[in-house]
Amino acid sequence: MAYSEFELIRLLSQESIKNRPDVMLGIGDDAALLNVPAGMQLVVSMDTLVHGVHFPESTTPYNIGFKSLAVNLSDMAAMGAEPAWATLSLTLPEADSDWLQEFCRGFFSLANHFEVQLIGGDTTRGPLSATVQMHGFVPEGQALRRDAARVGDLIYVTGTLGDAGIALSLLGQEQNEIDHCYLLERLERPSPRIATGLMLRSVAHAAIDISDGLLADLQHICQASGVGATINVDALPLSTAYKSVMVLSDLDDPFSLPLSAGDDYELCFTVSPDNVSKLHQQENTALTCIGTIEHEAGLRCVFKDKEFLPSVKGYDHFSELNT
Amino acid sequence: MAYSEFELIRLLSQESIKNRPDVMLGIGDDAALLNVPAGMQLVVSMDTLVHGVHFPESTTPYNIGFKSLAVNLSDMAAMGAEPAWATLSLTLPEADSDWLQEFCRGFFSLANHFEVQLIGGDTTRGPLSATVQMHGFVPEGQALRRDAARVGDLIYVTGTLGDAGIALSLLGQEQNEIDHCYLLERLERPSPRIATGLMLRSVAHAAIDISDGLLADLQHICQASGVGATINVDALPLSTAYKSVMVLSDLDDPFSLPLSAGDDYELCFTVSPDNVSKLHQQENTALTCIGTIEHEAGLRCVFKDKEFLPSVKGYDHFSELNT
Repeated sequence: MAYSEFELIRLLSQESIKNRPDVMLGIGDDAALLNVPAGMQLVVSMDTLVHGVHFPESTTPYNIGFKSLAVNLSDMAAMGAEPAWATLSLTLPEADSDWLQEFCRGFFSLANHFEVQLIGGDTTRGPLSATVQMHGFVPEGQALRRDAARVGDLIYVTGTLGDAGIALSLLGQEQNEIDHCYLLERLERPSPRIATGLMLRSVAHAAIDISDGLLADLQHICQASGVGATINVDALPLSTAYKSVMVLSDLDDPFSLPLSAGDDYELCFTVSPDNVSKLHQQENTALTCIGTIEHEAGLRCVFKDKEFLPSVKGYDHFSELNT
Repeated sequence: MAYSEFELIRLLSQESIKNRPDVMLGIGDDAALLNVPAGMQLVVSMDTLVHGVHFPESTTPYNIGFKSLAVNLSDMAAMGAEPAWATLSLTLPEADSDWLQEFCRGFFSLANHFEVQLIGGDTTRGPLSATVQMHGFVPEGQALRRDAARVGDLIYVTGTLGDAGIALSLLGQEQNEIDHCYLLERLERPSPRIATGLMLRSVAHAAIDISDGLLADLQHICQASGVGATINVDALPLSTAYKSVMVLSDLDDPFSLPLSAGDDYELCFTVSPDNVSKLHQQENTALTCIGTIEHEAGLRCVFKDKEFLPSVKGYDHFSELNT
């Protein structure tokens, strides 16, 4: 059984919550019609996941649906925004109803959890990819920006780092061990740190989500803010699963992946030492201090008080094409 | 010479106007930060163009850039919205700077003309496609919706119909004749009817843009409004180029393409006879009355006062996959 384009759009929309009072007109017209609440600024992010580039061939449609929304929710978290509306452009080689139902189950499990309404979409035929745009709100002047880090700020990260990176290196191997399953779930179903982002609004200076790897993303904060940073490598938060698998792997440096692998979708933020007491850990989301913002430009890593040179740099989709 | 992902984003953003006062933070953070003007509702549309599906292999990068924005601006026009901000997700097989510069030239020639600012983007590697999301404003309660047609309304269209459809049928043939060039430009560089959409805010009842073909799109208005319609086929506005090429072609019915071919991106709207005197024709955009909204459901076509049965139906990307 296959679907027409109009049926696909209907299928996508019927799973969505439909009761947001700020949506005047959702799916079904030339465009959606929306009210941004008074006193709120609109926060907009857009990310595309492409088959074989952002998710491996083996990824289930459920997880593709989940992750396509999760990476955009992560951008909302990094801005301190409350997520509200999503649009979805889905390109499919063929209209396969089983595939699409699983994609929708994954997408809407996360959307409905965060009370995000699907307000528009486009389905086209072509090589598999999913583009999601998220819209959220932040009170005027309270957005967490990359350019607001100050010298003396402490650098924090949420959760643990390197899980997605090591999961990617394990693909193709047997996934029956409990540690492997945990790490694969970290890669394919990242947890957007929305509650932490909201808490940080009045507490943190700068924030970013770690999509390209800690070094690359912290570098973005430093460049935008005109500062530098030192990272204490021995403080990097590592999961039990990461450490168990790491011991058995042929990787000789346990910190390369946590420093440089992408796809963890944790938050990295900076906070004045005066405000540290205001940090409230959210359920299941540890906060770990990993370094300090400094006047001197550039990133420095130290391990047990000695300089540490990481073996890899931040992830860049096009880097291998550079000449 | 090739570009890294970050350079691609910089290249895309530097061509954009940057002076909109409602953009607090554009490209360069996790998300854009925007202010919707007081008293305005936000209008959001999203469309994807896929290589080989929405544009033929022969389309130049300039025209791909132009059209990817034009089809979204057309949705703004159909809502009576003033366009403001765009996001662009571009998927490219490789980072080719010549191709990208031409794409940008086409995209920003139209964006800058309508004072649309690019506020976010994502570049990924993969099979060529472009997804654009447009954001515009409409005063509260003044949006042109599909569900507002009333019995007795006159049905109007802008411009001429069938040009894009016949251009598509001419592809692969020599394009050196002046009529062919005109029709190809109508296919590849549609003119979004923004000024007409703004004029219609206080004048028209329902509106839609003709992307799937007149019959299919008017049917959307009728279904959403719970009405039917009769189209006077002899009143359909046809361009001189269309008529010249039509005479020489092997198509035996001059009205099939104007009734059912997609991609014209003209507006179809309904207006009370009392309001017809308020219609103001915009520069280069003719307005033609082509029929009437009626109580009886369904679409009827008449030609010289006799029933006319069109030979084709509206375009549906997935229709040939239906089983």
